[in-house]
Amino acid sequence: MKNFLIFFSFLLIFSACEQKNEQKINERASINNQKSKKNNFGIILHGGAGTILKEHMSDSLEVAYKEILEKAIRTGYEILENNGSSLEAIAATIKIMEDSPLFNAGKGAVFTHHDTNELDASVMVGNTQDAGAISGVTRIKNPIDLAIKVMTDSPHVMLSGEGAEQFASEKGIELVDPSYFFTENRFKSLQRIKDSEKTELDHDGKTALVSPGQNDSKFGTVGAAALDKHGNLAAGTSTGGMTNKKWNRIGDAPIIGAGTYANNATCAVSSTGWGEFFIRAVVAHDISALMEYKGLTLKEASEEVIQKKVPSLGETAVLLPLTKRAIW
Amino acid sequence: MKNFLIFFSFLLIFSACEQKNEQKINERASINNQKSKKNNFGIILHGGAGTILKEHMSDSLEVAYKEILEKAIRTGYEILENNGSSLEAIAATIKIMEDSPLFNAGKGAVFTHHDTNELDASVMVGNTQDAGAISGVTRIKNPIDLAIKVMTDSPHVMLSGEGAEQFASEKGIELVDPSYFFTENRFKSLQRIKDSEKTELDHDGKTALVSPGQNDSKFGTVGAAALDKHGNLAAGTSTGGMTNKKWNRIGDAPIIGAGTYANNATCAVSSTGWGEFFIRAVVAHDISALMEYKGLTLKEASEEVIQKKVPSLGETAVLLPLTKRAIW
Repeated sequence: MKNFLIFFSFLLIFSACEQKNEQKINERASINNQKSKKNNFGIILHGGAGTILKEHMSDSLEVAYKEILEKAIRTGYEILENNGSSLEAIAATIKIMEDSPLFNAGKGAVFTHHDTNELDASVMVGNTQDAGAISGVTRIKNPIDLAIKVMTDSPHVMLSGEGAEQFASEKGIELVDPSYFFTENRFKSLQRIKDSEKTELDHDGKTALVSPGQNDSKFGTVGAAALDKHGNLAAGTSTGGMTNKKWNRIGDAPIIGAGTYANNATCAVSSTGWGEFFIRAVVAHDISALMEYKGLTLKEASEEVIQKKVPSLGETAVLLPLTKRAIW
Repeated sequence: MKNFLIFFSFLLIFSACEQKNEQKINERASINNQKSKKNNFGIILHGGAGTILKEHMSDSLEVAYKEILEKAIRTGYEILENNGSSLEAIAATIKIMEDSPLFNAGKGAVFTHHDTNELDASVMVGNTQDAGAISGVTRIKNPIDLAIKVMTDSPHVMLSGEGAEQFASEKGIELVDPSYFFTENRFKSLQRIKDSEKTELDHDGKTALVSPGQNDSKFGTVGAAALDKHGNLAAGTSTGGMTNKKWNRIGDAPIIGAGTYANNATCAVSSTGWGEFFIRAVVAHDISALMEYKGLTLKEASEEVIQKKVPSLGETAVLLPLTKRAIW
């Protein structure tokens, strides 16, 4: 289990895939020791692609990360083992990460330019392809719960801001005071970026938000994907977005097809990376489409999208290093 | 020209496609009389799938619709004819519809449950696959302009609400008082739906927003797609969303991959319909993916998505009639 957890913490993108063709399946893509279809289940998670940088990682912090990751994945795994649904499993797994200050989601969400925390999340299930998403909420303790509630209890897929919080209030989802999301570490990260902005030139109006010092906190999204014993896939993603984000920016995490996608015919995907590129490349759906229409394996489809298609949109210097951390 | 315009007003979904294979191309999909690649250009538009119902259409209103549609398409066409870009063409075309009270976008946007107007828009260009989108703005006269500005002048793809308006203000985009969007007709539609809600049972919490009386104003999104003489595609979509929408609902119009998608290798798509289903089916990107990965023609890909994949998600009674109005 230990090796898995170290690897999970560096995930860029992942998928869970039904074992229709054993030769094609990526064995590392799920914790799955059962051979029969009935017992073919598994769960994977990521805690973001850039939160953990070696130079910032003390031994005690590494232990803390591993403990939460292990708790999160074991919780989801046990739900699946006990015949729970993939949706229940990913929700429980993601909530544990949302409740920890270590990840850029829920409690540990990064700060916006205006010293606030704006949370996004989405979820999709592979059997019905039902989906739910929220963006820009500031008072929701567990955004993944609200995304699920949007899916199950509203006629909509995506709600945002105060309206989403009003819906949450009507549906009994836990709201907290915005101060709940204050963490010293994230607040200091924001101040460092603001300070660096003051001294850096912004030649084209596009680079101010992407200074090297910011990469540490750009990619800390959390997510999980699971396959349950009933053969159903589900994926979910939750994030605080980008440190110092302005103008109520929405990244890929709450966008169905970009940050999250699930289809029983192909795969379940939760992605984390530079959201703008992931939206333009429709990353999560594109992996599924390559499998469904071109017959690629999960590994081939993921490589095609992450190593070729996303970098072809530009900014390869940022995106290419992350592909080395991808799992398939 | 007249026949084209009548047809355009009933579009559900459309694409413009480079003529790589003349046998495969749908000749009705663009206004294009030139055979050489250099002069191969065209533009198409839609004014929503449900705004015009025969029983509500007087002769004078029909004339008014046709006049605006003709002005919109001619304006975009002339830009392309004079070597303008596909982006410039769709922007000019969409702005004319946004400035008219006849369409559910810009000036004629429908009302939310709270008597406000919340506007969404998105744009994508096929050569670089750059994209921009906004959601939930209440003071932007021409949302398509702001979506383009997000694409060209920000590091982001999607901004929302007050933050998007702040960005607009910084970039010189025209803001108006929210009262600009008041139209008697749309306000009455809202009151009718609210009245019907009071008398209708809402058994499962999902049907209150989808009463039959509402279909008239659910689908009035506008959009355009164009191919310019440089071989570049672009698509854009703009909407006021769903009458009586609550909780800051976001539909498919501002979602890249669902409401709008453009890729020079395949097609440009702007869609209108029941947004929730279009998000879950990742409609615009799926048409492109079927062409790119499975080798389908534009017609085949559109039929596959609209006649099979979207209906397979449910609510076929709502979606199937619209497929009869699709163009390819």
